[in-house]
Amino acid sequence: MVILGRVDTASPAYLALDLTGTFAFALNGSLTAIRLARLDVVGVVTLGMFTALGGGMIRDILLDALPPATFSDWRYLTVAAVGGLVAFAFGGRLERLATPIMLLDAAGLSLFAVSGAIKGLDFGVGMAQAVILGAITGVGGGTLRDVLIGEVPAVLTSGLYAIPALVGAFVVVVADAAGVGELPAALVGAVVCFAIRLIGVRFDIDAPGPPGLSSLP
Amino acid sequence: MVILGRVDTASPAYLALDLTGTFAFALNGSLTAIRLARLDVVGVVTLGMFTALGGGMIRDILLDALPPATFSDWRYLTVAAVGGLVAFAFGGRLERLATPIMLLDAAGLSLFAVSGAIKGLDFGVGMAQAVILGAITGVGGGTLRDVLIGEVPAVLTSGLYAIPALVGAFVVVVADAAGVGELPAALVGAVVCFAIRLIGVRFDIDAPGPPGLSSLP
Amino acid sequence: MVILGRVDTASPAYLALDLTGTFAFALNGSLTAIRLARLDVVGVVTLGMFTALGGGMIRDILLDALPPATFSDWRYLTVAAVGGLVAFAFGGRLERLATPIMLLDAAGLSLFAVSGAIKGLDFGVGMAQAVILGAITGVGGGTLRDVLIGEVPAVLTSGLYAIPALVGAFVVVVADAAGVGELPAALVGAVVCFAIRLIGVRFDIDAPGPPGLSSLP
Repeated sequence: MVILGRVDTASPAYLALDLTGTFAFALNGSLTAIRLARLDVVGVVTLGMFTALGGGMIRDILLDALPPATFSDWRYLTVAAVGGLVAFAFGGRLERLATPIMLLDAAGLSLFAVSGAIKGLDFGVGMAQAVILGAITGVGGGTLRDVLIGEVPAVLTSGLYAIPALVGAFVVVVADAAGVGELPAALVGAVVCFAIRLIGVRFDIDAPGPPGLSSLP
Repeated sequence: MVILGRVDTASPAYLALDLTGTFAFALNGSLTAIRLARLDVVGVVTLGMFTALGGGMIRDILLDALPPATFSDWRYLTVAAVGGLVAFAFGGRLERLATPIMLLDAAGLSLFAVSGAIKGLDFGVGMAQAVILGAITGVGGGTLRDVLIGEVPAVLTSGLYAIPALVGAFVVVVADAAGVGELPAALVGAVVCFAIRLIGVRFDIDAPGPPGLSSLP
Repeated sequence: MVILGRVDTASPAYLALDLTGTFAFALNGSLTAIRLARLDVVGVVTLGMFTALGGGMIRDILLDALPPATFSDWRYLTVAAVGGLVAFAFGGRLERLATPIMLLDAAGLSLFAVSGAIKGLDFGVGMAQAVILGAITGVGGGTLRDVLIGEVPAVLTSGLYAIPALVGAFVVVVADAAGVGELPAALVGAVVCFAIRLIGVRFDIDAPGPPGLSSLP
C-alpha cells in the first residue's frame, strides 16, 4: 500500500528508482562487454542482464523475498534486456566508452543503494542492516560483472565505491527514522552517492592503505 | 502427483532427466579439472560436484524451493560424487578430452534447460520466466565451473550457448501451453538444444558483434 | 532452547564457535587483501567481511534459514568489521603475513565446519547432508575470497582443504548420532580438522592425481 510521503516497495516512486537503476546497469554491463571483452550480441546482452539483475537478486535472497522481484516481475527482465540491446546497437559506434560506462555504473550504484535500503526498511530489518543491504545491492551487480569477466571487482580496488553506496543508504535510513518523506531522502541519497563516486573517480582518490606498508603500487 | 502425460517434479521422467544432466555435468566438470587445471582427486571431484549441482541450486533459490533438491536429496549428491570419481578414474587415461568434455557440457546444458523449465512451470511462474529459468539452470553449472577455474564463462564468450538453452526451454513451455505431453516435449527440446549447440561448436558460429566495431578478434 | 549437553544454534557455545570462526576469517581475508592485492582500507575490510560472512550466508541459503544470521544478527556484522579493521591497523606492520594468514584460514575452516554441521543437524537435514553442509560452510568464505581476487580457490588446488572440513563435520554428526555431548564433539572435530589441515600445509600433501597422467606440475 502506498502511504503519502512514504516510499515502500509497492509505490511507483520505488519502482521508478529500481527500474532506472536496472536500465543504467544493463547499459553499463553491456558496454563493458563490448569494450573489455569484445563479446558477440548474446554475450553483450547476457552480461548486461547479469549486471542489471544481480544486485537485486542478492538483496532479495538476503531478505527472503523469494522469488526475487528481478526474476518474477517481467518489467525488470524487459528493462534489462532492452538496455542490453540498446547498448549493443549503439555501443560499437561510440568512440569512447570509458566515460559513459563510468557514469552509468555510478548511476546504478546510487539508485540501487537507495532502493536497497528502502526495501530493507520495508521488510523490517534493523537500521544498520538496511544501510548494509543498500550497499550490497548497489555494489552487487558490478561485482558479479567484474567476476564474470575475470577482473578484480571495483568494490575491492576502488576506494570510493562501497563508501558512497553506504552514505547514500545511510541518508535514506536516517530520513526514515526522522519521519522525513522517503522520496526526497532517496533522491538526496542517490545524488550524494553519485557525487561522491564521481569525485573519487575524478581525483583518483583511494582510501588510505595499511599503516607500515610503503605506498600502494 | 504424477498426472498421465504430464511431467512434474515428482515424476520419474523428471527425475531421470535431472539426474542424467547432473551426471553429465559431474563428468564434464571433473574432466575439465583434469585437463585445464590439473587438480588432484579432491579438486577433480569438487569441481565436478560444483558443476553438477550449481545450476540446480541457483534454480531452486530463484524458485524459493529451499533447501535445494540438489542438496537435500541424496540421489543428486550421490550421482554427482560418482560422476566425479568415474571421471577421475578414467579421465587421465583418455588421450583427448576436448571432445567428451564438449559433448557432456552440451548434454548437461540441454537436460537442465528442459528440467529447469519444467520445474518453473510446476511452481507456477510465468511462461517467460520458465524459459529464462530453464536457460539459467542450463548455463548455471558451467558458469560456476568457469569462474572457479578463472576462465571467462562460455555463456559470455560462446555465441551459441545461451541461445540453445533458451530454445530448448521454449519448446517445453510452448508444448505445456498447447496441452501436449511434457515428456515428448522435453525430449524434443533437449535434442534441439543439443543439436544447436553442436552446430555452433562445429562451425564455430558466433552471434553477430556490435555494429560499428571491426570484426571481433 | 538449550538442552544440557546439546549444542544447538541458540546455545552460547554455538555462538562462540561461529563468532570465533567469523573473526578468524575476517582477519584472514583482510590480511590476504593486504598481502596479495594491496588494497586500501575499504578493500581490506570489504574482503575481510566477505570472507567472514560468505560461508554462513551460503549455509543459511541452503537451509532456508533466511535472512541469514550473518546478515540479520548485528554481532556477526560487528565481529567481521572489527576483524577487518584490526587486520588493517596491524597487518601492514607484520613482516611475514603468510603464516598468520594460513593459521587463521585453518581456524576459520575448522570452526565453520563444525558450526555448519551443528546448524544442519539443528534444522533436521540428514546425516550426509549435515557433513556436506559443514564442509560447504567451512570452505565457502575462502572460496568467495579467492574468486574475488582472481585466484583459483584453495578448495580446488589444495588436496587437504575440503577433506579436513569433511572430517571435522563428520566427527560432530557421528557424536550427535551416538548421543555424545555436542560441545566436546565440536571441539574435537575442530581440532582434528585444524591438525589435518596443518599437516597438509606443512608436508605439502596433495591427494593423488588422476591415474594415467604424468605427475602433476
